[in-house]
Amino acid sequence: MTADSLVADLTSALSNVPLIDPHSHIDPLAPVSKSLDDILGYHYYTELAHSAGMSQDALKKDVPARERVRAIVAHMDRYDNTAQYGWFLDIARTFLGFTGTRVTAADADALFDAAAKTFGQSDWEKQVFQKTKLEKIFLTNEFDDPLENFDTDVYVPCLRTDTLVFHLDKPETRRRLLACTGIEVTDAASLRKALAKLFLHFTRKGAKACAISLPPSFHPVPFDDEHFYEQMQFHDFHDLAPGVFWMIAEFCREFRLPFDLMVGVNRRVYEKGVFQGQDLFDQRTSLIHYKELFNAFPEVTFPVSVLTSAQNQELVAYSWIFPNVLPSGHWWYSNTPPYIRKDLTERVTAVPKTKLIGYYSDAYKLEFVLPKYGMYRRLLAGVLADEFVRPGLLSEADAVALGTRLLRDNVKEVFKV
Amino acid sequence: MTADSLVADLTSALSNVPLIDPHSHIDPLAPVSKSLDDILGYHYYTELAHSAGMSQDALKKDVPARERVRAIVAHMDRYDNTAQYGWFLDIARTFLGFTGTRVTAADADALFDAAAKTFGQSDWEKQVFQKTKLEKIFLTNEFDDPLENFDTDVYVPCLRTDTLVFHLDKPETRRRLLACTGIEVTDAASLRKALAKLFLHFTRKGAKACAISLPPSFHPVPFDDEHFYEQMQFHDFHDLAPGVFWMIAEFCREFRLPFDLMVGVNRRVYEKGVFQGQDLFDQRTSLIHYKELFNAFPEVTFPVSVLTSAQNQELVAYSWIFPNVLPSGHWWYSNTPPYIRKDLTERVTAVPKTKLIGYYSDAYKLEFVLPKYGMYRRLLAGVLADEFVRPGLLSEADAVALGTRLLRDNVKEVFKV
Amino acid sequence: MTADSLVADLTSALSNVPLIDPHSHIDPLAPVSKSLDDILGYHYYTELAHSAGMSQDALKKDVPARERVRAIVAHMDRYDNTAQYGWFLDIARTFLGFTGTRVTAADADALFDAAAKTFGQSDWEKQVFQKTKLEKIFLTNEFDDPLENFDTDVYVPCLRTDTLVFHLDKPETRRRLLACTGIEVTDAASLRKALAKLFLHFTRKGAKACAISLPPSFHPVPFDDEHFYEQMQFHDFHDLAPGVFWMIAEFCREFRLPFDLMVGVNRRVYEKGVFQGQDLFDQRTSLIHYKELFNAFPEVTFPVSVLTSAQNQELVAYSWIFPNVLPSGHWWYSNTPPYIRKDLTERVTAVPKTKLIGYYSDAYKLEFVLPKYGMYRRLLAGVLADEFVRPGLLSEADAVALGTRLLRDNVKEVFKV
Repeated sequence: MTADSLVADLTSALSNVPLIDPHSHIDPLAPVSKSLDDILGYHYYTELAHSAGMSQDALKKDVPARERVRAIVAHMDRYDNTAQYGWFLDIARTFLGFTGTRVTAADADALFDAAAKTFGQSDWEKQVFQKTKLEKIFLTNEFDDPLENFDTDVYVPCLRTDTLVFHLDKPETRRRLLACTGIEVTDAASLRKALAKLFLHFTRKGAKACAISLPPSFHPVPFDDEHFYEQMQFHDFHDLAPGVFWMIAEFCREFRLPFDLMVGVNRRVYEKGVFQGQDLFDQRTSLIHYKELFNAFPEVTFPVSVLTSAQNQELVAYSWIFPNVLPSGHWWYSNTPPYIRKDLTERVTAVPKTKLIGYYSDAYKLEFVLPKYGMYRRLLAGVLADEFVRPGLLSEADAVALGTRLLRDNVKEVFKV
Repeated sequence: MTADSLVADLTSALSNVPLIDPHSHIDPLAPVSKSLDDILGYHYYTELAHSAGMSQDALKKDVPARERVRAIVAHMDRYDNTAQYGWFLDIARTFLGFTGTRVTAADADALFDAAAKTFGQSDWEKQVFQKTKLEKIFLTNEFDDPLENFDTDVYVPCLRTDTLVFHLDKPETRRRLLACTGIEVTDAASLRKALAKLFLHFTRKGAKACAISLPPSFHPVPFDDEHFYEQMQFHDFHDLAPGVFWMIAEFCREFRLPFDLMVGVNRRVYEKGVFQGQDLFDQRTSLIHYKELFNAFPEVTFPVSVLTSAQNQELVAYSWIFPNVLPSGHWWYSNTPPYIRKDLTERVTAVPKTKLIGYYSDAYKLEFVLPKYGMYRRLLAGVLADEFVRPGLLSEADAVALGTRLLRDNVKEVFKV
Repeated sequence: MTADSLVADLTSALSNVPLIDPHSHIDPLAPVSKSLDDILGYHYYTELAHSAGMSQDALKKDVPARERVRAIVAHMDRYDNTAQYGWFLDIARTFLGFTGTRVTAADADALFDAAAKTFGQSDWEKQVFQKTKLEKIFLTNEFDDPLENFDTDVYVPCLRTDTLVFHLDKPETRRRLLACTGIEVTDAASLRKALAKLFLHFTRKGAKACAISLPPSFHPVPFDDEHFYEQMQFHDFHDLAPGVFWMIAEFCREFRLPFDLMVGVNRRVYEKGVFQGQDLFDQRTSLIHYKELFNAFPEVTFPVSVLTSAQNQELVAYSWIFPNVLPSGHWWYSNTPPYIRKDLTERVTAVPKTKLIGYYSDAYKLEFVLPKYGMYRRLLAGVLADEFVRPGLLSEADAVALGTRLLRDNVKEVFKV
């Protein structure tokens, strides 16, 4: 995968495609960074710095932002080989005027100051959208999000259902559900009614998807109403996850919302890890757990992300066979160049091209959309060059069209945006 | 893997090697296509078109062939990125005079007509053999196949044992067994006698292998005669699969037949999928299930195919250690360029070269042998170039010799054809 | 991965780095080969020759060394495609003056004689160190090794704990433990005392690590003293492995020794295989088994080797998150070019560079350090070229510095040598 002229040409052409980012954790009321601390507080940097030896003391609330940034930057010479460091370097160069080849401890203060100045501009959000060629970006909203005070045409709502599925046994969850729907959940019927209200609220506000992240062992199955009743009344809402999940899939069908499944994460494996840096996985997982689901809901589109590259062949095969299963993006531990290159190559040579949702940023702050998509576009260009243009299967123009389909067209068609 | 001159040279040299295809589903009484419907009725096209949105209505029996072909071709612009589309394009160009760069809906009728004319030639079968440089091709015969009215030296019989192993509990299977052997199976002794008759029949007719496809969870073990008796008499022939399989391995030993194991398929996962487009897998499988088998039958050669590329390293390691285990071909969901490239590279750098069965077509119609082997040869040439010629380990001529061994020599030696 | 000038330059620069080999099975009292039989008796050659059809008769004790060598060399034309053959060719060229391009049966006697002469030189050990640019090499010592009569600064002791963990139920193990510590193990307290003596002995003799190889299903957990007592007194020392392992980790913490974990081997799968050629694996394994361990011992450094490349992404992710988990080398069935290339690329783009222990030879005789590290350096150079230099992320000099870190710096820092 050399930085040759064909790949450079394709990368350049793909860079002109306006982005619709179908999955992020952006807060639409605070979408951009205010300080470099917002950039380097991203769990990728805190966990890499900590993994490379940084004490977690620097991450405490009462530590001044500048000092925290110094600590994280000071450790960069231990992790400046990583793709995540590469995103930061890209941010520093593109947004902060950094002109060096490598960020070291000595750069911390200057970058901190440059960020304060840059991010403090009144039109910063607009500038990021323009420099990123970003058109729309999907959010991941808690079920009781009022979805107000932002432009839902640009910040597209998406109903995150993790809490409903996995934490309905917590009184706090039911209290929140009651607060936003007026319904006290005591059985299947009231749960159904509450979910209907949520779906109505979200779709009226322009939501274009549901989403959930799932542990490796999860296995959705339908529960009958009696089983719901029993679990709720006599077992304090325990073990409801498979059935609640199934009911949400039913609402996706009713409301014609794609249901993003993000498969394979074990929460809190490293118990004393940094914030959002505690989750890992067990590679022993299979999409066969979703056999009943995919069969039962032919009308629901399931964009599926897998946490591990080892599971990518299952995702390729299930997407090749099931009309309603689509491979989606490159998630978390698989969002580094070797895994993207491999997984993308496997998908783009076997799954109908209209079903490939190429990428999403998963970003918490808008500044990350640019470097992450930048990485993806270079890898996409390389795969298109190696698999299609060089073997004579596609012209350069056709390869760019294929890449555009992955980057943009399919997002528009699948999510109807 | 650029389309450079070294790879082109190696591909060209390998294209001269006459093929002996060690696994197919060809019907020797109807080996070639009669219409384009025979080509595009192949499950790869029906499942990709359906996966990309085609209704299954077009696949109904009473739909005219031309209309079915139109529907499948009309969807090609949704899956013309796939390797399977590539095979079709190769067929269209090589056999049907197609000169375009891409097949679209507008080409359906012309291709249909060209196919009717081409396939209607009285010597079409002979032409396909010649253009493909095909010398022999293995069949996959049901146990009660009379194996008559074809040249078993060209169409080499192979005893498929799936039905015997997995469906002996069905009265229909035992009825068929009785019909072709004259033996009513009621216990281990009569089963053994019936199997002996089948093996005699098949080997007398020139059979050169047994074959079976196995689910991910399968674990062969020997049953004693008492256990057979009990299962047959008191449990209606249920759960006999491990023991029947073991008994067939004993006959492979007696009759010196290699036993092709095709490991890892779950049947009917997508219940409403197209014909032959319903099977998927669970990546969580291991060759450790076959430990007892490989130890117990040192005299039997087991060419093993794995459905998933994740299992390829096990196949490499087991083939490296067990003299009787051989990696065989690239099967189904692993029969696309990225998986072939990876799995082949892993095998050819670690397993004795005399044990590598490079490829088989798995074809239902002879026209597919050419494009499938064409894809394989290009990938093989690329791997030989990258791993052996460019690093200075082999000359071009020696690399071609190594490739020839994988394509042909080993098939001749392992299957004694 | 072409043999281009950039890769050649990087390889050449990396070849100047003096080696500290952090894992081997060298016997410091007989570190070099005395005859070609010592080279070709290495299990890689006996198992490949046997796998390719060689009878095990040639391996019997009473067969003259020259005849055994002839048999193994005679089969090389069946496995001269393998990486392991490549190591032998490198040895023949570098140490034995072989000038041909391929070793065949006709070369056996000449090589045997050349080896006798070469290996018979009084300064042969010194020559190998010099030609290999080898500075230090770690051993793998049984717990009752006196660690005497060799320079522990060059041959660095490492406490191998497999026997203690998995064979304490054998009276012979306890007898040996009594013999070297004076302590009869009857409960947790006496076991703790015996282990303390071993750790004292080893660290006083300059040991720099503990090591163990573990089956795929192993799951370490702490045992309380009562449980130890019960298992020892009433169950004849059975099922102690998880608890003994945990206790050893406690001593690693006390004595500040890194604990090398080599995860994933099933012993004696091919029961009649050649010596050391009987072990295989079950790909279905997960580092999630080590969750409690990694959490409980933040002060212990765990260099982890995985047997299968499929588990590499887990190793990457766990090393990225846990400060005390480090990816270490390329082990056994993953020690061939395609797996090294893949696993290394995945690690070097995601794990802090200060945590990457690039390679170890695992050698039984010193002559193998050179060809194995030679293979690794070429692959490392290729990965550095493709991932860092060609995309413009690192200069050549910086890439060499990164490579040097993997080859040497991290070994020095992690093991404090």
